[in-house]
Amino acid sequence: MTELREVAVVGGATTKFGLRAATWPELAQEAGAQLFRAVPGLDAKDVDSLFVGAAEPERFAFQSHVAPLAAEQMGLAPRRILQRTELACASGQSAIRSAYAAIASGLSDVAVAVGVEKMNLPSMAEANTSMACVMDRPWDGAHGATAPPFFAMVAQRHMLEHGTTAEQMAAVSAKNHRFANSNPNAQFHEKVFSTEKLLRLPLVSPPLRLGDCSSMTDGAAAVVLAARELVRGYTDTPAWIRGSGQYSDFHNLANAGSLTEWTGMRKAADEAFRSAHISVGDLDMAELHDCFSISEIIEYEALGLCPPGAGGAFAADGSSDLGGKIVVNPRGGLLGCGHPLGATGIAQAVEVFDQFAHRVPAARQVPDPNWALVHNLSGSANVHSMMIYQRGG
Amino acid sequence: MTELREVAVVGGATTKFGLRAATWPELAQEAGAQLFRAVPGLDAKDVDSLFVGAAEPERFAFQSHVAPLAAEQMGLAPRRILQRTELACASGQSAIRSAYAAIASGLSDVAVAVGVEKMNLPSMAEANTSMACVMDRPWDGAHGATAPPFFAMVAQRHMLEHGTTAEQMAAVSAKNHRFANSNPNAQFHEKVFSTEKLLRLPLVSPPLRLGDCSSMTDGAAAVVLAARELVRGYTDTPAWIRGSGQYSDFHNLANAGSLTEWTGMRKAADEAFRSAHISVGDLDMAELHDCFSISEIIEYEALGLCPPGAGGAFAADGSSDLGGKIVVNPRGGLLGCGHPLGATGIAQAVEVFDQFAHRVPAARQVPDPNWALVHNLSGSANVHSMMIYQRGG
Repeated sequence: MTELREVAVVGGATTKFGLRAATWPELAQEAGAQLFRAVPGLDAKDVDSLFVGAAEPERFAFQSHVAPLAAEQMGLAPRRILQRTELACASGQSAIRSAYAAIASGLSDVAVAVGVEKMNLPSMAEANTSMACVMDRPWDGAHGATAPPFFAMVAQRHMLEHGTTAEQMAAVSAKNHRFANSNPNAQFHEKVFSTEKLLRLPLVSPPLRLGDCSSMTDGAAAVVLAARELVRGYTDTPAWIRGSGQYSDFHNLANAGSLTEWTGMRKAADEAFRSAHISVGDLDMAELHDCFSISEIIEYEALGLCPPGAGGAFAADGSSDLGGKIVVNPRGGLLGCGHPLGATGIAQAVEVFDQFAHRVPAARQVPDPNWALVHNLSGSANVHSMMIYQRGG
Repeated sequence: MTELREVAVVGGATTKFGLRAATWPELAQEAGAQLFRAVPGLDAKDVDSLFVGAAEPERFAFQSHVAPLAAEQMGLAPRRILQRTELACASGQSAIRSAYAAIASGLSDVAVAVGVEKMNLPSMAEANTSMACVMDRPWDGAHGATAPPFFAMVAQRHMLEHGTTAEQMAAVSAKNHRFANSNPNAQFHEKVFSTEKLLRLPLVSPPLRLGDCSSMTDGAAAVVLAARELVRGYTDTPAWIRGSGQYSDFHNLANAGSLTEWTGMRKAADEAFRSAHISVGDLDMAELHDCFSISEIIEYEALGLCPPGAGGAFAADGSSDLGGKIVVNPRGGLLGCGHPLGATGIAQAVEVFDQFAHRVPAARQVPDPNWALVHNLSGSANVHSMMIYQRGG
C-alpha cells in the first residue's frame, strides 16, 4: 500500500458574502485577488492545479464550463489538473477533497481550490425553482420537497421523537449569529439576533422560522493546498489534512431510512476519525453544516458529541459555544454567514486555517485549537462529507 | 516524491447512443446494468468510489446533485469518494482522471467512472441555447459563438492558412462514419456516408456541413478502475494508465492566441508523453475529440503526427485509418457515435479497453494495439485533457 503524501492548507481567503452586485466571474476574480493578498508567498506559476466548487452556475448564472473561466479570472494557468466539482451544497468541500487527492497522489504539488456561487438573481422565483433540482427532481423536487420543507419535516420529527423545542433551535441560530458579528465577511455581520427575537421572526416552513434557515447568498472563497515539502514556503501554521470521510445513503426520499438519524454522517465520521487516528473528544472546534438550525442539532448527535436526541439540550446549555465542550461554527455558520453553495465548504476551511493561526477576532477565537473537523451535507442530508485538520507549527 | 500507485481500467460498457426515449436517471441505470454484465467480477460492495461525468444536467434535465442520483440508479453506495466532475465536453475524461488520482493516492481501491448526458429535449431550441453557456457567456456565447460557428471560424482560418479543403474534412467524417458502421452502440450505426454524399449535405455553419458536426446525443458509459493489486480479479487484459496531460490556455475568445494552432493541446501532449515515457510514434491508436471534422485534422498536427498544416492530407491519404500510421477513432468518433458530452470520454476509454482485449468487430479492430491515447477538448478548444494507456496481459 502506497504511503499518502502529506497535504496541508497553507492559506485562504473569502470575499464578502451577501447580496452582491457582482457576477459569477467577478466573484471568482475577487476571491483570487483576496487569496494572493492573504498568501504573500503564492506565485501564480507555482499553482499547477485548480479545482472549482460550484453547485449550479448553469442555472444561477447561465454559465457552464466554469473551471477555465475561474482560472482566467484568477490569473491561473493550471498545467496539471483543472476541474469543476459539483456536489450541491458540498461542492466546495468536494473541490478541497479533489485537490487533496491530487497532491497526495503526487499528480499535483500546489493546488488552489476555489468555490463560487451567485444565487441572487433578478428573479428570485427562478433562483428558488432552481433549488428544486438539487433533490430527486421528478420524485421529490417537483412535489415541493426543496430544502426548507424537507428540513421542516426533519425538525417536526425530531421534536416528536425527542422533545426538541423551538427555543433550542433558536439557541443554535443565536450562537451562530453572535459569532457572525465578529466576522466582517458574514452576510449578517451587523445583525443581532437574540433567542427572543429569533422566536418572533416569520415562519418559513413550520416549525422553521426565518432565523432557522440559511440564506441564498453570493460569495466566493479560495484556499491553497501544498505538499509537505513545499508547505514552509507559504506558512508557519499549516492546517494538515489528517483524515477524511464521506458517505452516501440514498437519493430518492422514499429510500431514506430515517429523517432524524443521519447514519450516513455517522459512517462518514467513523471513517474520518479512523483515518485521523483520533476520536470526537479530541476535537477543539468543528465547522458543521448548519443549513438549518435543526441540522446542527442532529449533527452533534451523529458525530457522537452527545447521545441521540440530546442535540437540542447540547445547543441550549452552551456545550457547543466558547467555554463549552467544543466550539461549533465560530465563523458564524451558514446561518450567520449565508450559504453560497460552492463557497461554503472552502470558507469553512479558511476559518480553520485562520483559527489555527490565531488571527481571527478575539470574540470568536477558539483557545489554542489543535484539531478541527469540517462537515458538509448535501441534498436531503443524503450525502455527508468531512475532513479533519491538525494544526502544525 | 511519492511513488504513484499503478491504476488500470479493468472493464467498461456503453449504452446505445442516439435519440433515446430515456431520462437522465434511466440512462445512468442502463449504464450500470451494462457495466455489471461486461465485468462479471464486479461486486457493488467493492466499489468504494464513484465519479460522475456530466456537463449540463442542470439545464438539459433540470437536475443537479447528480452524483448520489447516479449512485442510487446504479446500485452503488460509495463509502470513500462520491463526486460529479464537470469540464463541459471533457466531463467524462475528467471523471476518469479523478478516479485515477483517487486510486493512485490510495484513497480508493476500486472506483467506477460513469458519464451520462441527456441532450435531446422536447424543445431543441432550449437545448441549443443551453450550449451557449459552455462558452464565456456574456462575451462569446451571447454573441452567437456556440460550437458550430466557432469551429467554422477555425475551419475557415485553417483553409486560408494551409489550403485545407472540404474534401479533406469529409475524409475524416467518412472514415469515422465507416467505423461507426461496426459499432452497434453508435448513433449513426446504420448510416453510410461516402465523401461524395457528405459534400452534398446541408451547410450548418460554412464551411461545416451536417456531416462535419457531431450531434446532440443521449447516452451513458461506465468504466471500472482498480489498483494494481486488485486488477487480476477483474480482467486478464487491463488497460494501464501510464500518462496524463492537461492544459488550459484561455477562456474568453479575445484571449485566444491562435484559432488553428492549439498550443494547449501540444503542451498537454508533451506532459502526457513525458509522463508515459513514450513518444507519439509509439501510439497504435488514438481516440481524438472529433467534435467537428476540422478538430481531428488540427489534433493530428498538435499531437505531432504530422507537421502543422498537413492534417488535411494526413486524413485524406489514409494515414489515420487502418493500415496507416495510426488508427484514429476506430470507435466511430464523436462524428459517428454522437456526442453525449459527459459520456464521450468514458466511451472512448471503453473502446481502448475493448481494442486491447481484441473484442471489437474485425472491421474496426486495430492489429495488436499496445499503446493508445485518449483526448478530449472542451469549450472553444481552450482546455485539452488526455491520457495514455498501455495494454497489459
